[in-house]
Amino acid sequence: MDLVDLFKNIDKYLDKDVTLNGWIRNHRDQKTFGFIDFSDGTCQEHLQIVYDEALPNFKNVQHLLVGSALEVKGKIIKSAGKQAIEMKAQEIKVLGECPEDFPIQPKRHTKEFLREQAYLRPRTNLFQAVFRIRSKAAMAIHEYFQSHNYLYVHTPLLTTADCEGSDQMFKVTTLDLNNLPKDDQNKVDMQKDLFGKMAFITGTGQLHGEAFALAYKKIYTFGPTFRTENSNTKTHANEFWMIEPEIAFCDLNMLMDIEEEMLKFVVQYCLDNCREELEFCDKFVQNGLIKKLTDLVNSEFKRITHHEAIDILKKADVTWEFTPTYDGDIAKEHERYLTEFFAGPVFITNWPKDIKAWYMKLNSDGKTVAAVDLEVPEAGELMGGSQREDDYDKLIKRAQELNVDLDPVKWYCNLRRFGGAYHSGFGMGFERLIIYLTGVDNIRDVIPFPRTPGNCEY
Amino acid sequence: MDLVDLFKNIDKYLDKDVTLNGWIRNHRDQKTFGFIDFSDGTCQEHLQIVYDEALPNFKNVQHLLVGSALEVKGKIIKSAGKQAIEMKAQEIKVLGECPEDFPIQPKRHTKEFLREQAYLRPRTNLFQAVFRIRSKAAMAIHEYFQSHNYLYVHTPLLTTADCEGSDQMFKVTTLDLNNLPKDDQNKVDMQKDLFGKMAFITGTGQLHGEAFALAYKKIYTFGPTFRTENSNTKTHANEFWMIEPEIAFCDLNMLMDIEEEMLKFVVQYCLDNCREELEFCDKFVQNGLIKKLTDLVNSEFKRITHHEAIDILKKADVTWEFTPTYDGDIAKEHERYLTEFFAGPVFITNWPKDIKAWYMKLNSDGKTVAAVDLEVPEAGELMGGSQREDDYDKLIKRAQELNVDLDPVKWYCNLRRFGGAYHSGFGMGFERLIIYLTGVDNIRDVIPFPRTPGNCEY
Repeated sequence: MDLVDLFKNIDKYLDKDVTLNGWIRNHRDQKTFGFIDFSDGTCQEHLQIVYDEALPNFKNVQHLLVGSALEVKGKIIKSAGKQAIEMKAQEIKVLGECPEDFPIQPKRHTKEFLREQAYLRPRTNLFQAVFRIRSKAAMAIHEYFQSHNYLYVHTPLLTTADCEGSDQMFKVTTLDLNNLPKDDQNKVDMQKDLFGKMAFITGTGQLHGEAFALAYKKIYTFGPTFRTENSNTKTHANEFWMIEPEIAFCDLNMLMDIEEEMLKFVVQYCLDNCREELEFCDKFVQNGLIKKLTDLVNSEFKRITHHEAIDILKKADVTWEFTPTYDGDIAKEHERYLTEFFAGPVFITNWPKDIKAWYMKLNSDGKTVAAVDLEVPEAGELMGGSQREDDYDKLIKRAQELNVDLDPVKWYCNLRRFGGAYHSGFGMGFERLIIYLTGVDNIRDVIPFPRTPGNCEY
Repeated sequence: MDLVDLFKNIDKYLDKDVTLNGWIRNHRDQKTFGFIDFSDGTCQEHLQIVYDEALPNFKNVQHLLVGSALEVKGKIIKSAGKQAIEMKAQEIKVLGECPEDFPIQPKRHTKEFLREQAYLRPRTNLFQAVFRIRSKAAMAIHEYFQSHNYLYVHTPLLTTADCEGSDQMFKVTTLDLNNLPKDDQNKVDMQKDLFGKMAFITGTGQLHGEAFALAYKKIYTFGPTFRTENSNTKTHANEFWMIEPEIAFCDLNMLMDIEEEMLKFVVQYCLDNCREELEFCDKFVQNGLIKKLTDLVNSEFKRITHHEAIDILKKADVTWEFTPTYDGDIAKEHERYLTEFFAGPVFITNWPKDIKAWYMKLNSDGKTVAAVDLEVPEAGELMGGSQREDDYDKLIKRAQELNVDLDPVKWYCNLRRFGGAYHSGFGMGFERLIIYLTGVDNIRDVIPFPRTPGNCEY
């Protein structure tokens, strides 16, 4: 049985014999008895196992080190200690011993050290909590969208369309780099490659998502995404997961309703389903975490335009590193100020068109686009979305102004010709959500095996 | 509102006014009235919309072509036709017209033609069914594993470990292929690349999955996978999705229990949640589909060894293209025979070690490994798994025999040193499952935008 089921049904198992499999997280042995701090990784809580000389292999068990794998049989009894229950062991079978040089010992390790032990760090309390929250949050996302009639669509990662600019995307090839076939121009002959063209890993499923939204009304993607950014910050990784919903018959206001409802659902789901993990993070990672999350669920997200945001920033009695301007972007320091100003999440809408993407819907002022960023206290920008340009001619015109190569996205533009409709979508970086949910401040610590510039180990 | 909610709650909406958004799938217009076959993509069923001259824009509506996007308001009434209900339209707003050259017309298109219209084919009844089943089946997989205390883990796709053999994996680079940096040996200087080494997209998350199973007991992955195979068959694609569960304290028999339970759960979930879609496939794709699926849920999966399987094949009164041998693989024709022989799914266990992977657990006979393939009627091999070698020395020995480069997988082998335990896992190709669930026989028709050799369009 799983430890999580035992803790969920204490009354059922009290005074009963059970068998558990798991690992020693800590061990105190006395002369005639011992205590094992035992975890099987299915929940944050550990079980105390008490054993004594009655065990046939008492001497062996006494010498077991932290990390060893066991099968234990025994009776669940009321505990005199902090925990509600403990196990009185009748049988302890050693499945896998663990030597003294096991790097994960019951003491505080630095996160930097643990990153170097990426394959073992899941055995620490911190990473147990983080990756269990990650798993539950992923399920929450599926639950939200599926229960609201969204289609989950697997958009392709491989693409031969260079519309993001090939600097942003990883190139993908089956050719031997040390022996590349060349054409008459002495350029690499990409016709010899598997797809007959240069291929990339895409950084977004949005374009394909729109095609599906215009057939299924509401869709979402949830999959890995890649960026080649050579940037070593706490919030950048070269491989991360992203959620990209796309909704037909949806304008910018409806999109904000959806973003707000979805985020509250996911946070509440985690409050309900990872309580112990969040309490652990509240205690050891970010004091006040649970209050922060509860406040978010109970808050009403503010909605302001980019212009209003700049007004507020200009009036603020703050010396900015980056001067706020009506045609400019909003810096991290501005994001922070705005979420503090409103003491909660803020949607910022109607951005200057020149700092946003070509496919966003031009507003009637001709200057701004129907884009929206959601700024969340401490997390900064958590979601970015827009209403999409649904006017074929305007879309083409804007693409041409920005020198977008239209050939590979002809099909995408055609969606506007064949029964197009107003539609909107947004993207949410999954790791950014996990950073927010756990209070952990480095993206390297919310990804099982993170990939950053120079780091692709394990 | 969504059409699916209307059809689920007919009693609630009967004689009520509702507003719907969606597309014209077919249109019959008479002199003074017309019928629109209307779908919003949230369910397989269409709604018939009846309108007449009372509409202010009657003349416009009359000329609308298939594919046009509409907002319709009207009363839901009992239908005289085949459907239970229809809508008597009060208002029809045209959101996006569709011209005559719209490729998806209400007639039978070949699948080959539709593959070339990959961005529009979701608007056909067939692909509506297929991709809705795909979405629900994905949810079923998450439901099964989450409700059984499995951790969903996002294993990395980027890797610098060449343990599958770089011929099998796509190479990934940020370097300019037409201007590659060279080292003193005139080889490509991979130190100049983003990760400082040659990087690949992996074809499996198993190794990382094992690391997590030995911390969380039960985990699963569900993500995209890539193969460079230059093979143009109905079952091969270069990008597909895979589910890879990995379970600690689990031997081969327990693994088969899990595989059987999981598959039955997913099939039953689809029978319960995509009934109309499956009925459509039963009628137009594979007669008897629903019976096939119901039979599977009610069957008991047979378990035989590879040796027993070869015995049966040798005794069979069949002229084989590939002669069955005790040390050889099992061909497609053999798979078919065996599932017909047992009239149901068959697990084949204990395969000759030389045709299986280096990390599979060696049986006590020294000749076979604790591997298992699940063969399913019509689908062939649906899952492949094994108990993993948990003996450090045996694992290293086998890797050396097979010339596996141990350096990049040292950490993986170390899992056996640090509290290792018997553990098992399997992989299931998601597309193979969808092929089985829908009866569609070509992998290109169950992937939204398929990637196959020479084909990476859209």
